[in-house]
Amino acid sequence: MDKTGVKIAVIGGGTGSFTLLSQLKHYTKHLTALVNMADDGGSTGMLRDELGVLPPGDVRQCLVALSESERVRDLFNYRFEEGTFSGHAFGNLFLTALEKMTGNFASAVETASEVLNITGEVHPVTLDKVTLVMKQADGTVTEGEFKIGQSDFGASKHPEMALKPSTAQLNPDAEQAIMKADVVVIAPGNLYGSLAPALIVPGMSKALNATMAKKVYVCNLVTKPGQTDGFSVADFAAEIERFGNFKLDYVLYNDDKPSKELLDTYAKEGEFGVEPDKEALDKAHYKAVGGHFVSGKPYAAAQDADPIAQTRTLIRHDADAIAKELMRICFA
Amino acid sequence: MDKTGVKIAVIGGGTGSFTLLSQLKHYTKHLTALVNMADDGGSTGMLRDELGVLPPGDVRQCLVALSESERVRDLFNYRFEEGTFSGHAFGNLFLTALEKMTGNFASAVETASEVLNITGEVHPVTLDKVTLVMKQADGTVTEGEFKIGQSDFGASKHPEMALKPSTAQLNPDAEQAIMKADVVVIAPGNLYGSLAPALIVPGMSKALNATMAKKVYVCNLVTKPGQTDGFSVADFAAEIERFGNFKLDYVLYNDDKPSKELLDTYAKEGEFGVEPDKEALDKAHYKAVGGHFVSGKPYAAAQDADPIAQTRTLIRHDADAIAKELMRICFA
Repeated sequence: MDKTGVKIAVIGGGTGSFTLLSQLKHYTKHLTALVNMADDGGSTGMLRDELGVLPPGDVRQCLVALSESERVRDLFNYRFEEGTFSGHAFGNLFLTALEKMTGNFASAVETASEVLNITGEVHPVTLDKVTLVMKQADGTVTEGEFKIGQSDFGASKHPEMALKPSTAQLNPDAEQAIMKADVVVIAPGNLYGSLAPALIVPGMSKALNATMAKKVYVCNLVTKPGQTDGFSVADFAAEIERFGNFKLDYVLYNDDKPSKELLDTYAKEGEFGVEPDKEALDKAHYKAVGGHFVSGKPYAAAQDADPIAQTRTLIRHDADAIAKELMRICFA
Repeated sequence: MDKTGVKIAVIGGGTGSFTLLSQLKHYTKHLTALVNMADDGGSTGMLRDELGVLPPGDVRQCLVALSESERVRDLFNYRFEEGTFSGHAFGNLFLTALEKMTGNFASAVETASEVLNITGEVHPVTLDKVTLVMKQADGTVTEGEFKIGQSDFGASKHPEMALKPSTAQLNPDAEQAIMKADVVVIAPGNLYGSLAPALIVPGMSKALNATMAKKVYVCNLVTKPGQTDGFSVADFAAEIERFGNFKLDYVLYNDDKPSKELLDTYAKEGEFGVEPDKEALDKAHYKAVGGHFVSGKPYAAAQDADPIAQTRTLIRHDADAIAKELMRICFA
């Protein structure tokens, strides 16, 4: 099938974006990944600390997802296992070297896009150096995406999320992609660690409210212990709307049960399938679309993905089924 | 001018090869760089020690010299200045990551060649992990290219050079390039540190004797203190023939005097211009071709080159003049 010309912008970062972009690229020539820039863990965190660069990790994953060059793609995800570079993904060093050389992260991403021969475009949501800050109702303040990702919120759920410095701005290229899009997709991902920092960038709300695009959230499959325990599909969607201060048009959720073995494995880690609260979804202002969105082959699908991401999750979205649903929404 | 179809193989590594290849690529489509693989200093040495890879440094320089992609070329030569990666050239990490990923240095070079969009080909002279060993007449044995490069030979000049392990073999791709070439060029370079280890690879002598190509040595411009003090052009050529156990057809040497200021600067470091001993050259079995081979703009020329190489030498070959002379030899 020839690729369509519909314009899709995907907001996110991390594994959820990776799998979705990997499939969506087969359906359209005009795909733009808009990437969270608050990451400060692992290889990315070290590079930020040591070299003062913007976080390359999530950008790398999105570039790889859109790449048409298999060999270079594998290289970008390659992680050194020994010596001085142990733990560093090659693609992170690539982006870091280019940023240090040119002093310009956006042009680094552009060069990487050429080398990787990508379908579409990848843009950081902001080009400012931002730190994610979380304020809980009980007054606790936590700084840094990695630390927030590890936090147990206790009784203080639904924290306030902010970026430091507050002068950070939406990347004009990201704004343009949102304005021109036919559909803007909020990818599944870590709600407070990945999606919040992308959606709260000053200027994002304005763009999401101004664009004529349909706005679709692809809901997470499982809850995160200590953060989203007991959250239903509508609860996730409400948080997304709160972060971006906008109204969703569609929410895609899985109404297929993963196997009992898989659910049991997750339950041991305190993670549970996100339940569609049909009553709330029926009353919602957005259209809630259920589907068989869980991959039947969690392991096989994982092999295509970032080798690091493989260790993180077993239940995976059937990204191709979601991509097809998104195309139907494009043409609805 | 359109590029010709003559087949030229350049044996060497380091700055001399870099400048020659950078110009020669404008004259022919069929240029092959055959690269010394005994380097063990600096970034390259650390990568060999820590990760057990083949030495990427000289291969990187040759790839960059032949690259048509300015941005990626600059990236390959970019050296990190701070943090964990300080001193490492990005291109070295590129080749190292690819070798670790694929287990195959030759395929790493092939991928790098694609990414850099190079004119011609780059092949390591050997794919075995080799260490350069020097035995002097007084019995002293020194191991490692970097250490040998730093050595003062004292009275024990003309040392025996060998590679460890002795089972190392000429890379079949290098052999083929020599056999198919119209001209094989020995680039100017460090006589004992760069040229010897390339020429003494087992199988090299056989190939150099078997090929129908004209064999040309481009003589160094200055002597190296403690190693080649007082060497004339014929002395350099004799060492080249000793290492490769073959007969040269041509020796190109500079018969132009660099400026007194430049010579004085060198003299302070114990380096002197290599003198053409006309009498010996007239009697030689090879054709000695003198020319104005010193670049008139040493600093300007240096700006195009590897930023690291810039600090190493001020007197530079006029690589374009040499390239033209080599083309005349091709068509002689």
